[in-house]
Amino acid sequence: MKKSIGVGLMGLGTIGGGVSKALSEKDGVVAEAVGCPVVLRKVLEKRPVDIEPRLLTRDVREILADPEIDIVIEVLGGEHPAVDFIKEALLAGKHVVTANKEVIAKHGAELLEMARDKGVALQFEASVGGGIPLLLPLQHGLPANEILTMYGIINGTTNYILTRMSQERMGFSEALKKAQELGYAEADPSNDVEGRDATYKLAILASVAFHSTVRPEQVYCEGISHLAEPDFRYAKELGYEIKLLAIAKQAGGVVEARVHPVFIPEEFLLAKVGGVYNAIQVEGDLVGKLIFYGRGAGAQPTSSAIISDVIAIGQSIASGKRVPSVMRRTQLKPIRPIAELQTKYYLRMSIADRPGVLAQIAKILGDRSISIASVIQKETDVATETAMIVIMTHPAREEFMQQALAEMREVSAVAEICNLIRVEE
Amino acid sequence: MKKSIGVGLMGLGTIGGGVSKALSEKDGVVAEAVGCPVVLRKVLEKRPVDIEPRLLTRDVREILADPEIDIVIEVLGGEHPAVDFIKEALLAGKHVVTANKEVIAKHGAELLEMARDKGVALQFEASVGGGIPLLLPLQHGLPANEILTMYGIINGTTNYILTRMSQERMGFSEALKKAQELGYAEADPSNDVEGRDATYKLAILASVAFHSTVRPEQVYCEGISHLAEPDFRYAKELGYEIKLLAIAKQAGGVVEARVHPVFIPEEFLLAKVGGVYNAIQVEGDLVGKLIFYGRGAGAQPTSSAIISDVIAIGQSIASGKRVPSVMRRTQLKPIRPIAELQTKYYLRMSIADRPGVLAQIAKILGDRSISIASVIQKETDVATETAMIVIMTHPAREEFMQQALAEMREVSAVAEICNLIRVEE
Repeated sequence: MKKSIGVGLMGLGTIGGGVSKALSEKDGVVAEAVGCPVVLRKVLEKRPVDIEPRLLTRDVREILADPEIDIVIEVLGGEHPAVDFIKEALLAGKHVVTANKEVIAKHGAELLEMARDKGVALQFEASVGGGIPLLLPLQHGLPANEILTMYGIINGTTNYILTRMSQERMGFSEALKKAQELGYAEADPSNDVEGRDATYKLAILASVAFHSTVRPEQVYCEGISHLAEPDFRYAKELGYEIKLLAIAKQAGGVVEARVHPVFIPEEFLLAKVGGVYNAIQVEGDLVGKLIFYGRGAGAQPTSSAIISDVIAIGQSIASGKRVPSVMRRTQLKPIRPIAELQTKYYLRMSIADRPGVLAQIAKILGDRSISIASVIQKETDVATETAMIVIMTHPAREEFMQQALAEMREVSAVAEICNLIRVEE
Repeated sequence: MKKSIGVGLMGLGTIGGGVSKALSEKDGVVAEAVGCPVVLRKVLEKRPVDIEPRLLTRDVREILADPEIDIVIEVLGGEHPAVDFIKEALLAGKHVVTANKEVIAKHGAELLEMARDKGVALQFEASVGGGIPLLLPLQHGLPANEILTMYGIINGTTNYILTRMSQERMGFSEALKKAQELGYAEADPSNDVEGRDATYKLAILASVAFHSTVRPEQVYCEGISHLAEPDFRYAKELGYEIKLLAIAKQAGGVVEARVHPVFIPEEFLLAKVGGVYNAIQVEGDLVGKLIFYGRGAGAQPTSSAIISDVIAIGQSIASGKRVPSVMRRTQLKPIRPIAELQTKYYLRMSIADRPGVLAQIAKILGDRSISIASVIQKETDVATETAMIVIMTHPAREEFMQQALAEMREVSAVAEICNLIRVEE
């Protein structure tokens, strides 16, 4: 039985500060859960920080070579040098807990194999959904289920922006500015608003849920910066809410994974998730639909998830057990290209306000077996002699829809194709 | 390494049938997760059932004495003989998985101690929230958190009834009848509609979350059968939804646990949980508010939870590890009596339609420092010369409110005190 378990913390930014604080404030609870004290031994941070000087180091080797450090917590963020440090830590026989979605999404399979070979654990609950226990129930709470679908609001920044755009008729730029003022969006918000952050998280979720490896570049990705006030107005009129959803499905051994804005019926619970909150709906063949909801970011919620991983590893170390491998044997499953998607669409466009144009558009759609469910045309701009039309389609194939859009762009009477948004029901 | 793990199933009703089916249909997945096959060896059932005759027994001793049975799954339901069988199974050194909320709520502490003494596991994920992974994340996903509050819709039958009453202006009896027709309520619905089922589940949740022992008789309990159409009408008018909530809180080492109808603001996510679904909001000091949502009953969701417990135990057995004890060291915490509750109230009453009566009522409340937030009086029954009034109060102490009600009942101008419903915001 060990007398104590040593932790090395890489990064003392917002998250790292939260982890360090929680480890010290919750030391009694952690020790009781683990069976021995868990002690912070070294902190890697190059910026000036407020922490006991004897703990601080600027040299990663001081953590990697310290025999008293059993678990490394990586909260540096970003791909490099984080992934290199994690590899070195695993090779040095240390267990690793990370909140780094980019590293896990891009290198998770390789890192997990390294961890397995070295007989150590690599845990990353905090990489998706902040403090929400998500990977734990997916891996250990639903083991008999085949996961069929996942629909997630997994980026708090964009959900905050969309909530304000929807509830207050704010434009994208204004809502983004509010998010930045409140610290919900970064100065360079592209990682969030272009959907990249969500693709990392979805790649992790899908890999875990489907026992496969889904790489972030295999996830189709569209952000929210092209959404405009009229889209929210029409969504409301049609009974929908607009959300940036991360969607993953598997059927017949084929996986679908995509992140893009979606029209969802306003009565769906996911449609009612507002602000910076995250919510992930998981459907299993036995359990049916589950939703996990909570804060997807922030120092305290993220620390909650990190410390749950630390405690799980600590319990294994303290009892002298080999840490169980995180994932079941995986199997590479093919990814369905977005072109093969079959879904309903919302299409908003600006056309010349004269007879016959709608017929022309309807023909382009009809030629590709895209059937129209409803049309709204009521806004006319007298100055430019254009009209705004909104078309809702029945389920259609994505590649046909894209071909139709390409052809419409060639039609002189089509002033602008404003937005194409997929509908999930 | 064991060649296979044997299971004895006690009960082959709806749930037992689901478990047996899932064990056989998911045998490959279960074997892969555990590391060896998990084989159903005996089924205890006295009624005629459709199962291989060699598996069937009417004598519990055939399961208890079978050395090839490692895990007993108890899905008989009810207190006796289930609790006796579980005890005997634990004493015989068998691991036990149960969905039995009544047994765990009433005898959980004692049974867990027996299991600990015998070095076996007692797991009961399916006893609360059906298939929703709930005890798993509470125990292993939030170990660093102090759980501050829990608000749960944990009885699908009553939530179904309340949803219909709220959405369709149905009376209680009619909604109950619909629930019975659909198989959501039993012929004798009292266990559900009087809140007893929810008190069992809340006692389990609170015991696990607060690392204490909360007995069901310590949970204040009120059912939904006294709710009437006007309550839903006024709730809507005032911006609330009526839900049967199971509420548990801890502060300063004191626990509060109660089940009763509640006015909750209509914009709360819990207010939007409709039909037979369950949802449990858990607030931890680090993680903030989480919600877990899903189907709280049914053969398949319940089987999902039972098999996750079986797999967890199976993994321990297969790897030759001692099964970790389910709960942290517990500490008996005092329970706050309902009389000491401090909350807002909705009070609906029928009074004589003449001057001065409202003043009389207001004085009775004022005498006990109960301050009125708003009054609605608009329905007058000319025939009986009575008026319906609704009073919303500011936070007040429950015992004072009860004293006030007692005094009002003595006032001749008070025709009827129709309903007192607590408000949570």
